[in-house]
Amino acid sequence: MAKQNITPRDKDYSQWYIDVVLQSKLADYAPVKGCMVIRPNGYGLWENIQKTLDEMFKETGHVNAYFPLLIPESFIHKEAEHVEGFSPELAVMTHAGGKKLEEPYVLRPTSETIIWSMYKKWIQSWRDLPILYNQWANVFRWEMRTRLFTRTTEFLWQEGHTAHATQEEAQEETLKMVNIYKEFAEEFMAMPCYIGQKTDKEKFAGAVSTYCIEPMMQNKIALQAGTSHNLGQNFAKAFDVTYQSKEGKLEYVWATSWGVSTRLIGGLVHQHSDDNGLVIPPKLAPIQAVLVPIFKKDNKEEIIGKCKEITENWKNAGIRFKIDDRDNYKPGWKFNEWELQGIPVRIEIGPRDLAENQVVIARRDTSEKVKVSVESVTETVQNLLVDIQSSLFDKAKKLRDENTFTTDDYNWMVKKNDEDNGFFNIHWCGSRACEDKLQNDNKITIRCIPFDNPQEKGKCIVCGFESNERVLAAKSF
Amino acid sequence: MAKQNITPRDKDYSQWYIDVVLQSKLADYAPVKGCMVIRPNGYGLWENIQKTLDEMFKETGHVNAYFPLLIPESFIHKEAEHVEGFSPELAVMTHAGGKKLEEPYVLRPTSETIIWSMYKKWIQSWRDLPILYNQWANVFRWEMRTRLFTRTTEFLWQEGHTAHATQEEAQEETLKMVNIYKEFAEEFMAMPCYIGQKTDKEKFAGAVSTYCIEPMMQNKIALQAGTSHNLGQNFAKAFDVTYQSKEGKLEYVWATSWGVSTRLIGGLVHQHSDDNGLVIPPKLAPIQAVLVPIFKKDNKEEIIGKCKEITENWKNAGIRFKIDDRDNYKPGWKFNEWELQGIPVRIEIGPRDLAENQVVIARRDTSEKVKVSVESVTETVQNLLVDIQSSLFDKAKKLRDENTFTTDDYNWMVKKNDEDNGFFNIHWCGSRACEDKLQNDNKITIRCIPFDNPQEKGKCIVCGFESNERVLAAKSF
Repeated sequence: MAKQNITPRDKDYSQWYIDVVLQSKLADYAPVKGCMVIRPNGYGLWENIQKTLDEMFKETGHVNAYFPLLIPESFIHKEAEHVEGFSPELAVMTHAGGKKLEEPYVLRPTSETIIWSMYKKWIQSWRDLPILYNQWANVFRWEMRTRLFTRTTEFLWQEGHTAHATQEEAQEETLKMVNIYKEFAEEFMAMPCYIGQKTDKEKFAGAVSTYCIEPMMQNKIALQAGTSHNLGQNFAKAFDVTYQSKEGKLEYVWATSWGVSTRLIGGLVHQHSDDNGLVIPPKLAPIQAVLVPIFKKDNKEEIIGKCKEITENWKNAGIRFKIDDRDNYKPGWKFNEWELQGIPVRIEIGPRDLAENQVVIARRDTSEKVKVSVESVTETVQNLLVDIQSSLFDKAKKLRDENTFTTDDYNWMVKKNDEDNGFFNIHWCGSRACEDKLQNDNKITIRCIPFDNPQEKGKCIVCGFESNERVLAAKSF
Repeated sequence: MAKQNITPRDKDYSQWYIDVVLQSKLADYAPVKGCMVIRPNGYGLWENIQKTLDEMFKETGHVNAYFPLLIPESFIHKEAEHVEGFSPELAVMTHAGGKKLEEPYVLRPTSETIIWSMYKKWIQSWRDLPILYNQWANVFRWEMRTRLFTRTTEFLWQEGHTAHATQEEAQEETLKMVNIYKEFAEEFMAMPCYIGQKTDKEKFAGAVSTYCIEPMMQNKIALQAGTSHNLGQNFAKAFDVTYQSKEGKLEYVWATSWGVSTRLIGGLVHQHSDDNGLVIPPKLAPIQAVLVPIFKKDNKEEIIGKCKEITENWKNAGIRFKIDDRDNYKPGWKFNEWELQGIPVRIEIGPRDLAENQVVIARRDTSEKVKVSVESVTETVQNLLVDIQSSLFDKAKKLRDENTFTTDDYNWMVKKNDEDNGFFNIHWCGSRACEDKLQNDNKITIRCIPFDNPQEKGKCIVCGFESNERVLAAKSF
């Protein structure tokens, strides 16, 4: 079946992923440990992710700022859990301008510490609150095992950092942002997400509580795709950031932070792509439709003219398209290349069909082809883009729903998890010991305690102790 | 005159600049040597600069990509002039993940080396050319003396890196990009620019030739605002990047690079601002017009309602505006704040004027106020935005033209330069000795050899030797 030189998923899933990322030219390995180069095809996706999320952030009152990459090492040590969580993976700069530095700098693994050192300067009164800042930046986490997009030592992300007068307002912000992530992931990435709260073991180092979205990838394991943290007053206390309330009292400021990263692009590949390469949801595709004119020297001008005629109003109609008029590649080679690169819709325009006033339209996700009249190409493409977007979501949701299991049988879960992965709705007593055992014995972690979880008496799947609700557990990237 | 707490320019120009940047909340000093925090007012300008330039780059066929921040130290040493130029100001990372690295990484001062190490992987044939990539990123140059925006150890920029099959094509690209910078600076930043070629002393470390735009700031010294480099085959040879030509021959690839940075924001301040604070050209202003309703409790709803009525179609008309309906600040305080922050147009809407169906409109650049009828507010604002943009350009051009002197008199130039700065069109013999003397004795550097320079016999202003054309010389930031 496969026309591409890609390892099939059922043969070697990990190699399939690498093949898709490299061959579709999303990214390439860099000559720097654990780093990658994001090539234009991958960066184009990131630009569309940025643009869409940035609008959503701005509509909810946020503004962008930029803080230094370098953080004095001592800052990281000011919040006890934060330093414990991040110390093992810090990248450290010791020399600059030919001299050893008096105090080393770490390359930001996340920016709470440097940002709260500035908030101390800027916040005095309740009038200065809330601060609703976001930053688009590169960050560094020196992880031992890295993977293209899903885990790299340097990655691009956005990090929101907000400051509030009250605990309630901070909690409201934290929940607002994780819900924005869910909305974005589902509507634009066609990636259905479970949403809920992290356990204490899994929460952000320095947070009071962490909320997350957890989609299921094609191999039925979880990808943590976005997190939002209620930081309480932890960073305000570490950096002594107080404000004078309306009543004249001095209070510590309440904080949140939230982020998504280029990891989302890895999620997009894992969610939708197939043995022929990348599949991109139309709403995020830098090119939504490609026209491949099939011509010889004597009819080149005529056929390309027809392509231009067909697409005349596409820019105004908001269809992002490309006419592939290169004459140093054959049409069949072009079909394969655009399939590999995941362009949602391909339009083949040759002299024989044109003689009958027709063109061939192929959709990437199902490989279905239809012949339509020249006059109805625009409408067909517009409808297809809508249909592909929702089909991809439906397909992903079906896979997820069919592979999410409510079970009280530990042995069945272990067997299922070993053989075929899956998400498991299980009772858990709340103890760290049982959570550790799930992870150590089965690589299963609690992905989240879902929002609006029905309260239900049960027994912990590990130890049999009492439990009042189920949690969502699975292997994860 | 000054309503703001800003040091006047004629008292202390340097302090005036710092006061404007800090008080208009463009940026703040960071607790990291030579670094700053770009606050939302400054970052909003950068976002508009990015958006505009990015469109211009894409219209000329460029695409964005992202390469690692970290560069193996040995890469920097592969191009002899490049390492000599950048070594003194490198930031170096030696430790990561708790261990000493086998080879240190430098934090990119510019990305030619890491990018050309990748181009070697991607370029084999003439079919792979040209490569027209751009990157938006942070870079590091560990300078001893830093200034907000105009010289910081970390800054944000874009760097284009292109690869071509022929010398002619690379040269064409180099000139195309410096001309795009000039177009952008003049049309959007209202910053008239001299354009030309750098001398060998002033060119980029590793370039065959460098071209630049050089506007004159209010204090009559030059700011290098954008550069474009023809790199010849220097980096292709350093990284052994060859391609097979159509004729089957193996050739080294030709390269260019070009960049502008957050320094442009410093230029914007130096070019247009005054003793009352920031002045922003309308085309780049995140907020172009602010409406300040003047209300008491009993007419608040009515007056704010009027503001909304007036601005009803502004979003569609492309006017970026804000209604400042805060009730914890007085109107006079708000007028001052928006003046300080450089918003081009302010509209004051109070009950007394409204009773006569009028509002007051004030322009930031001249402080002129007019009363207009409610019905003509939109048109007046639109006309004002156009007029302010061109007035700022004209004012800057007048200052520049009046302070650009064609002279053959060394002593006169030195005196003028000492007393009042200025740009000097002077004959220069082409020798490094005379160029060094200008710099060492007078802090004058040759800013550029202007394009389309009339050929004209003359004598070097320093040594009296023969010269065939004048060059543009000045102090610079």
